[in-house]
Amino acid sequence: MPLLRRKANRFHLPASSESGHNAKMSESPHFVGIDVGGQTIKAGVTDENGRLLAQSSVPTDAFKGQDHGLEQMARAARQAIADAGMKLADIAAVGVATPGPMDLAAGVILEPVNLRPWKNVPVRAYLQESLGRPVTFQNDANAAAYGEYWAGAGRGASSLALFTLGTGIGGGIIVNDFILEGAHSHGAELGHTVIQMVGGRLCGCGLAGHLEAYVGARSLVKEARRRLKTDQAPSSLRQTALIEEEQTTATAVEEETLDARHAFLLFQEAEAGDALASELVDEAAFALAIGVVNVMHSIDPEIILFVGGMTAAGLGFLERVRGHIKKHALPVPAAKTVVRYGELGTQAGLIGAAGCARRGWLLAKK
Amino acid sequence: MPLLRRKANRFHLPASSESGHNAKMSESPHFVGIDVGGQTIKAGVTDENGRLLAQSSVPTDAFKGQDHGLEQMARAARQAIADAGMKLADIAAVGVATPGPMDLAAGVILEPVNLRPWKNVPVRAYLQESLGRPVTFQNDANAAAYGEYWAGAGRGASSLALFTLGTGIGGGIIVNDFILEGAHSHGAELGHTVIQMVGGRLCGCGLAGHLEAYVGARSLVKEARRRLKTDQAPSSLRQTALIEEEQTTATAVEEETLDARHAFLLFQEAEAGDALASELVDEAAFALAIGVVNVMHSIDPEIILFVGGMTAAGLGFLERVRGHIKKHALPVPAAKTVVRYGELGTQAGLIGAAGCARRGWLLAKK
Repeated sequence: MPLLRRKANRFHLPASSESGHNAKMSESPHFVGIDVGGQTIKAGVTDENGRLLAQSSVPTDAFKGQDHGLEQMARAARQAIADAGMKLADIAAVGVATPGPMDLAAGVILEPVNLRPWKNVPVRAYLQESLGRPVTFQNDANAAAYGEYWAGAGRGASSLALFTLGTGIGGGIIVNDFILEGAHSHGAELGHTVIQMVGGRLCGCGLAGHLEAYVGARSLVKEARRRLKTDQAPSSLRQTALIEEEQTTATAVEEETLDARHAFLLFQEAEAGDALASELVDEAAFALAIGVVNVMHSIDPEIILFVGGMTAAGLGFLERVRGHIKKHALPVPAAKTVVRYGELGTQAGLIGAAGCARRGWLLAKK
Repeated sequence: MPLLRRKANRFHLPASSESGHNAKMSESPHFVGIDVGGQTIKAGVTDENGRLLAQSSVPTDAFKGQDHGLEQMARAARQAIADAGMKLADIAAVGVATPGPMDLAAGVILEPVNLRPWKNVPVRAYLQESLGRPVTFQNDANAAAYGEYWAGAGRGASSLALFTLGTGIGGGIIVNDFILEGAHSHGAELGHTVIQMVGGRLCGCGLAGHLEAYVGARSLVKEARRRLKTDQAPSSLRQTALIEEEQTTATAVEEETLDARHAFLLFQEAEAGDALASELVDEAAFALAIGVVNVMHSIDPEIILFVGGMTAAGLGFLERVRGHIKKHALPVPAAKTVVRYGELGTQAGLIGAAGCARRGWLLAKK
């Protein structure tokens, strides 16, 4: 990413000054967002409008342990700040977004499936100490929602719900600049809402009938393989890599990549007109629509967004989802709620983490 | 209701003074809540802690038209104020709660099923004009939630979700003193969240698989009648009034009373050990638990409450619901979320309406 803007340091007092940094910043504050993923840790510097000025990326290498992981987060942040031609003292606040489960109030990641063998990682305290700036800590899907709300497809909306469509399904809900974290850090766990209480498919979490069990890439691929075995009808899916038995791969992250590729094959064959692929995709679109309807009838946000790898399915999939929503939502939200893909792509979490930093910084100033 | 406290008027300037009323109030403000139901309109005066000082009730007589209805609301309010030994000038603000559907931003009831033939009723504007005090307008289930949050079983909680269990199922969600009204006045329509997307029971709203179609008194009674016809097993329900064919009654309100009575019979027979009644009640408890789980996994409130006529089912029903929740919620919310009945009974809406008035008054003062 090119350096979009270089900030002049001459307007700042020396970084060694003992007085608070905030007082020294130029009138336009800058923020750092860190997005911790299973494969890479990304960091970026944004201005106060969510414009990304510089971005860096380092490998997560979760297998090297959580101490290494924490160092990598700080390293990515320092790199992005340097790339933006800034110093730590130029940064008003830092936001970090990670996968769950987590204790948001404590600033700790608990036992993240995609970051094994990490356990009880004190992300906020470490980064605050290492970087010497105020740090906000957020769930990655909540951060993505906040990113789209602040600087993406939700700009100007009063409220927004976002579904992350990947191997699994995550969610984030923002209402009037409030992030619905939940009383026990379980707000917007939309993938684990129940849409089929009797006879529902088993979810990866061990419970049944969850949205994720119908829409997540892993579930979708698993269901496709099952149908190809039980259903003797011809299908172009039989000529794709999807038909291969699920491989036992080394890490959760590698499995995730494989599932995403296979799900994409499914969407491609559906677009190409294969009956079974089309049926499977439509079932997923219907299930997602029901998940959306439940958000409409409980949160009733102004706008609902989808982000994540599965948005590669394109407008055809989005139109299927919208069609099912129209038939299954109450008339007013069906007519008025905007349903679309996000705008920030893979940068939603990164920009959102910076947005969360800005939000916390503004609240602390009050 | 006895007059609990009489407020001395001698501390106030004459009501005819032209200066703003707020400036004249004693240090401890008072609020009026109005709860508009299908049969009666209740009004009450509360102190700033939600203590009810006086209460009045007048018939709704919806069939007499909405102009009459609006007059009845104002009449009930004036009566309660007089019973509290106060004058309108002593009241800081008035809150009114009504059934939906409504446009909360506009302050208008649209076409309420239980208040036929009312249509597009400008409740807020009328009461503001008639009473000369600031008026807040709220959905009745939202108001009940706010009542319990302010002065009932949710006192001190940061967030709360409430289910109203009656003929139908309503909901209210409060997070950090914010009432989740929704962008299109459809927030917390919890009765119309989908828990069975394929093969779900038909809901009164015309859509299928909704929580209300499994838990609402009307649906429960309808399902009991259906099973008594198709299932030949002996059941004590055959000796109850429930077995009578559904009568065509004059008004929606009369039907509601009948459904509630029949549902109560069902709970009684379940308690007494009838197998079919017990099965039906357990199915309802399971469905309600799934609705609760979905709220836990999307809102994740600190506390979840049930209010309304069906709470007459007692602790046995509550324990069944809690048991199903434990099995179907993710571990953390399952362990930590408080699930119980409300405390304010039929006064939740009334006290909540006064609480909403207080909330609006405090926000306006800022």
